[in-house]
Amino acid sequence: MSNTLRPPEYRRDPVTGRWVLNAPERAARPLALSHVKPHDRRDAERDRCPFCEGREENTPDERFAIRRPDSVANGPGWQLRVIANKFPAVRPLANTDPLGAGLWEAVPGHGEHELVIPCARHESNPVCLTNDEFANLLCAYRGRLLALADDPRLGYATIFQNVGAEAGASLAHVHSQILATPFVPDGVGQELDGAKRYLEREGTCVFCDVLRHEVAAGERVVMATANFVALLPFAGRFAYEVWVLPLAHESRYETLTDAAAHELAEVLRTVLTRLDVVLAEPAYNYFLHTSPLRASELPHYHWHLEIIPRTARAAGFEWGSGCFINTVAPERAAAELRAG
Amino acid sequence: MSNTLRPPEYRRDPVTGRWVLNAPERAARPLALSHVKPHDRRDAERDRCPFCEGREENTPDERFAIRRPDSVANGPGWQLRVIANKFPAVRPLANTDPLGAGLWEAVPGHGEHELVIPCARHESNPVCLTNDEFANLLCAYRGRLLALADDPRLGYATIFQNVGAEAGASLAHVHSQILATPFVPDGVGQELDGAKRYLEREGTCVFCDVLRHEVAAGERVVMATANFVALLPFAGRFAYEVWVLPLAHESRYETLTDAAAHELAEVLRTVLTRLDVVLAEPAYNYFLHTSPLRASELPHYHWHLEIIPRTARAAGFEWGSGCFINTVAPERAAAELRAG
Repeated sequence: MSNTLRPPEYRRDPVTGRWVLNAPERAARPLALSHVKPHDRRDAERDRCPFCEGREENTPDERFAIRRPDSVANGPGWQLRVIANKFPAVRPLANTDPLGAGLWEAVPGHGEHELVIPCARHESNPVCLTNDEFANLLCAYRGRLLALADDPRLGYATIFQNVGAEAGASLAHVHSQILATPFVPDGVGQELDGAKRYLEREGTCVFCDVLRHEVAAGERVVMATANFVALLPFAGRFAYEVWVLPLAHESRYETLTDAAAHELAEVLRTVLTRLDVVLAEPAYNYFLHTSPLRASELPHYHWHLEIIPRTARAAGFEWGSGCFINTVAPERAAAELRAG
Repeated sequence: MSNTLRPPEYRRDPVTGRWVLNAPERAARPLALSHVKPHDRRDAERDRCPFCEGREENTPDERFAIRRPDSVANGPGWQLRVIANKFPAVRPLANTDPLGAGLWEAVPGHGEHELVIPCARHESNPVCLTNDEFANLLCAYRGRLLALADDPRLGYATIFQNVGAEAGASLAHVHSQILATPFVPDGVGQELDGAKRYLEREGTCVFCDVLRHEVAAGERVVMATANFVALLPFAGRFAYEVWVLPLAHESRYETLTDAAAHELAEVLRTVLTRLDVVLAEPAYNYFLHTSPLRASELPHYHWHLEIIPRTARAAGFEWGSGCFINTVAPERAAAELRAG
């Protein structure tokens, strides 16, 4: 096989129209985690963790940081850093002319793949972040969405966090990832389209309607604060899947205020702590669903975070059919998480 | 929490319209496999495997079997058995009236969940099946599709095989599963819809067009026989994902002849053996995509098997965006599998 890896490219499946990212360079990344409980290997990794304070030379230069006034970029003295991923799935490419058409539709894998490191200490569990650190992380998401919108060739930024090897984390030190692509990814697009159809049919935002009913019934609600609700979606794909949504209609995460970020941090930390208790520190992912970059306010969409614990593996049925099997009723999981 | 589990139900996500299966009873199934290489625990499980000859009393009664003329149902002397899953995700339900509507659309989880055990010996690797055993398995798929079509309330049967714990297998002894649902699952529906759009636009079957070009180019082809082609899809979601398709236009797997089943068995065994060599016995799933039950011949659809090795985990990006990252170019994987 050739030793020169092809640069990343987006390819479109000729049958379904689904976009896939081909990223051969990404295969070179080292995997520090393997099949272990999320937080067991903390000590073993601590001595060589590239995300800890004092090892900044092991990472690409920072794009944004919260740091002491007397500190210098890419040195110690920080509370949060945003850096490029050293092993990116996508990267800025000068030429984005199509690589193929018809059955073989493909375009170069232009994009940005960033990491947000929300604490200088070696913490592997997001619930160990202080409330300020968690709020800083949530504000950094907002800042990166605004910054990435400056590239008119980028259409969407997917923000996510993997916790534990079973959830795809390759380094233990808590970090979020941001992967910005020219197009709105299919899964997000389906949600946007479904919400638009609902607005056309019912005249309201489907998320607002769901929230109104869920808060009144309470059966699937884990907790609610003045501005946020954590609930288990009626048709969640994963056992103990939790969504956190703003109560008010907000389509763009970019409008989150600093005060709301602190409130959201508290909600998230509480929900994640209860998942840790009820499921014994599960591996999980969380991700943000928000409007495309540079979108105006959308009457049909409502940003939210989705948390998916990895309690079961998707197997042949799920991959083959696209239908998911959830073996824990959301009503039951909600009751456990309220009690947790 | 209540000790009485709710019967299975299908729920529809109010935003995307995506159907999910809630199956609390399924959580009761024992998991004999854990995080080990697919075939390492064969000896440990052998002594208590419920699928081995002589332990038929540990399984539900057989629905179909290939057995010696002098043997009796649910006793030894068989080469292949079809049984109901002891821990089904769906099961026959008398009442299928809707359970909810509007935002909370749900229907009872009526369906069938069957297992096909293709060999009486304790084999955990499908490549250890003889060609006759593999061909019998492929013919049993055909027989079950025809049998399940007798229930007018069933719309689709998803046939799949999980190999290895990482791929969701809970018992090592080689077995396929068949999960029949009232509706065509979303993932299959998207493929059917995409293929129909292609026919309307181009006047031909998209799979036939893909095959013509792929066979001529050869770059992504692993092997070809008189009637079947194994290739890596141009926009495969998973590294080393392989599809096996009939060369001729066939929309319904039910039309497979016995002779073709033997030829297909040889192709499948060869491809799976090469995956074992190149990826060191990976966990994988394979599944059948075919027309809905009782469909007439469709000019736009073309049945095929998809094999997805579990070389990487879907993580926050994939689950959050619906876009998959494949870190091995299909052209490169095809070259490796041809050489394997």
